[in-house]
Amino acid sequence: MNGVITLITDFGTKEGYVGAMKGVILSIAPEAQIVDITHDIPFGRVSKASLVLESIQRYYPAGTVHLVVVDPGVGSRRRAVAVESAGQFFVGPDNGVLEPAYHADKLFNCYELSDPEYHLKPVSFTFHGRDIFAPAAAYLARGVKLEKLGKRVQNPVRLASGRKKIISNERLIGRVIYADRFGNLITDITAQELELLSRDMSRLAVSICGKRIEGISDYYSQGAQGKLIALVGSTGRLEVASTMDSAFDHLGPLAEDAEVTIFKI
Amino acid sequence: MNGVITLITDFGTKEGYVGAMKGVILSIAPEAQIVDITHDIPFGRVSKASLVLESIQRYYPAGTVHLVVVDPGVGSRRRAVAVESAGQFFVGPDNGVLEPAYHADKLFNCYELSDPEYHLKPVSFTFHGRDIFAPAAAYLARGVKLEKLGKRVQNPVRLASGRKKIISNERLIGRVIYADRFGNLITDITAQELELLSRDMSRLAVSICGKRIEGISDYYSQGAQGKLIALVGSTGRLEVASTMDSAFDHLGPLAEDAEVTIFKI
Amino acid sequence: MNGVITLITDFGTKEGYVGAMKGVILSIAPEAQIVDITHDIPFGRVSKASLVLESIQRYYPAGTVHLVVVDPGVGSRRRAVAVESAGQFFVGPDNGVLEPAYHADKLFNCYELSDPEYHLKPVSFTFHGRDIFAPAAAYLARGVKLEKLGKRVQNPVRLASGRKKIISNERLIGRVIYADRFGNLITDITAQELELLSRDMSRLAVSICGKRIEGISDYYSQGAQGKLIALVGSTGRLEVASTMDSAFDHLGPLAEDAEVTIFKI
Repeated sequence: MNGVITLITDFGTKEGYVGAMKGVILSIAPEAQIVDITHDIPFGRVSKASLVLESIQRYYPAGTVHLVVVDPGVGSRRRAVAVESAGQFFVGPDNGVLEPAYHADKLFNCYELSDPEYHLKPVSFTFHGRDIFAPAAAYLARGVKLEKLGKRVQNPVRLASGRKKIISNERLIGRVIYADRFGNLITDITAQELELLSRDMSRLAVSICGKRIEGISDYYSQGAQGKLIALVGSTGRLEVASTMDSAFDHLGPLAEDAEVTIFKI
Repeated sequence: MNGVITLITDFGTKEGYVGAMKGVILSIAPEAQIVDITHDIPFGRVSKASLVLESIQRYYPAGTVHLVVVDPGVGSRRRAVAVESAGQFFVGPDNGVLEPAYHADKLFNCYELSDPEYHLKPVSFTFHGRDIFAPAAAYLARGVKLEKLGKRVQNPVRLASGRKKIISNERLIGRVIYADRFGNLITDITAQELELLSRDMSRLAVSICGKRIEGISDYYSQGAQGKLIALVGSTGRLEVASTMDSAFDHLGPLAEDAEVTIFKI
Repeated sequence: MNGVITLITDFGTKEGYVGAMKGVILSIAPEAQIVDITHDIPFGRVSKASLVLESIQRYYPAGTVHLVVVDPGVGSRRRAVAVESAGQFFVGPDNGVLEPAYHADKLFNCYELSDPEYHLKPVSFTFHGRDIFAPAAAYLARGVKLEKLGKRVQNPVRLASGRKKIISNERLIGRVIYADRFGNLITDITAQELELLSRDMSRLAVSICGKRIEGISDYYSQGAQGKLIALVGSTGRLEVASTMDSAFDHLGPLAEDAEVTIFKI
């Protein structure tokens, strides 16, 4: 345990939801170090929360607790779980949002947060982030053993891996997952997949929304202002960007869900 | 004292206002643990800040200092105060924003922040958050006694309790206070008030903006997508929500200030 | 060293960029106290980031590390630097964003972050915030000497001082730098410059967007609602504001870059 608890939620920062969770954590684990990652996940967007978790997880020290509350099914019968994987802990609803934890180490351990001993009382129907998830994260940060929190879960819900497919060894088809704040379009295509197609990045071209981009750039400021470029971004995925400008604005709103084709030239 | 200082302001997060306050706090109380609750209170909206404070206060440990700077009258003659109530401390302008502190324990102690010894020097006319409130919170977190900060205040400004009224034991009329980020409409009607009308929640109906909702649900995902439901939310108040959708978008902008009637069926 | 690391970035709070930087910091310096100043600097706006840094720097204790990542040229040949000035440390790209550090003490020391020993491996082309700047800040917070991080820089890039000019001792012409969240228009004119014109603030008038404001007020709530006023704000600069209203909304979008003339009456 190092006492670090990261928070990823879709609660926004306009009300007291996140503040109440922080109070619960500090009441149980006064020494905890709470780290805001984001509270601006679009409401209920499990896949986006999972990507954010994936992009930060490896940078945290062993023993960190990642608390992810994007939970559109709160109050229904979905399970609440805690996972130990690759030396870290993950707490959240069993709706696939913790996929990066399962992916990081196949020998993960997953437990349901079923022991009411470790819940706030009374548990509300509508705010398990405060009443079930925050207490679990705090107890883990304090050193309580994972298996104390409830009963073992063998088959947690996994996130579907999407519709990405390699058509041939000449061509790779993926899609944009989201536009970041700079208007960069983050795709589901990884650097490794690009390299399977060609190790020479200058021999690849990208097609998106009817536009064609030749070659994979090294960094954002490469090329004339406003020029569309493709590059491998800091998340390790192919991005479509526009130098000193927004690729999203350039290509229009359909770009956020667009198909992206990579081919050899 | 536990060193925890929570922050509720209307300063936003685009400039250095909150950052300057945090610097002042850490200069006076290096061991303080600063917890952001929200900086997105609409400008000068004292009632909203008070509700957020109410929704988080009980989740914090004894000795916590809650610093609330929503202060449209800064520079005028409104007093600056600090309050001890229910084992916690509250610092802010004397404009009613600290109402939950007065409400939590009738035997509260309130002092004016009138001793310049505990102010930053010089005190600006425009930024008491940095020059008067942040230092007071930091000194309290460090263990300075409340009564050191200035002279006793007998009658702090209280927040008017609104225009809610029970018309009969058949009917209860309240109103929406605000729409949260999910589009849930939070009302001023508490769970206790509903129970005075009927202990059987299935025998209550809610009328809002010309729509009628039968029964009080347990959780948000109850019912078909887009269906309007009423439920007691995590703040302990009646909310009007829409399953996997926004009740605010459903009912239109007038909903944020709408009258809400509860009656027996 | 006091372990405090402040963060100013243009990364926003919707993705994991800032979260990854925080993880890197806590992996290197587990005792660091990370303080969010803002992540909402408009993309690439170096001058705005520099102003925010200026507005908070003096309120932090000696030994604080200020980490500023507004870096539109990331991946190009701009240098990455760390600076010691006035008892504090500053880390960021060498594009002028650290101007307040150079301004605070002419005897500053500046070093390039050129020693790969103190970088994350591998260094990406696109995210030096995570791979170069965050590690440098963490090592400084842990007590590593500035000169260990790389080679000395004699002439860091300075921020141009703008086009402000005193036309005569009767008149001063400056401009609006930005509108804050309250719609107050912050200018590049300092209190000291006003005093050069006249020590009697009631004998000064301000002209902006064809409107004339007589006298300099003491605080925002002075005057009738909606009235335009001028005052010296908490940043120490002349602001144009509107009592209980937004001067920006009052004067229209051109106000954010408007010329401001001060003259004696």
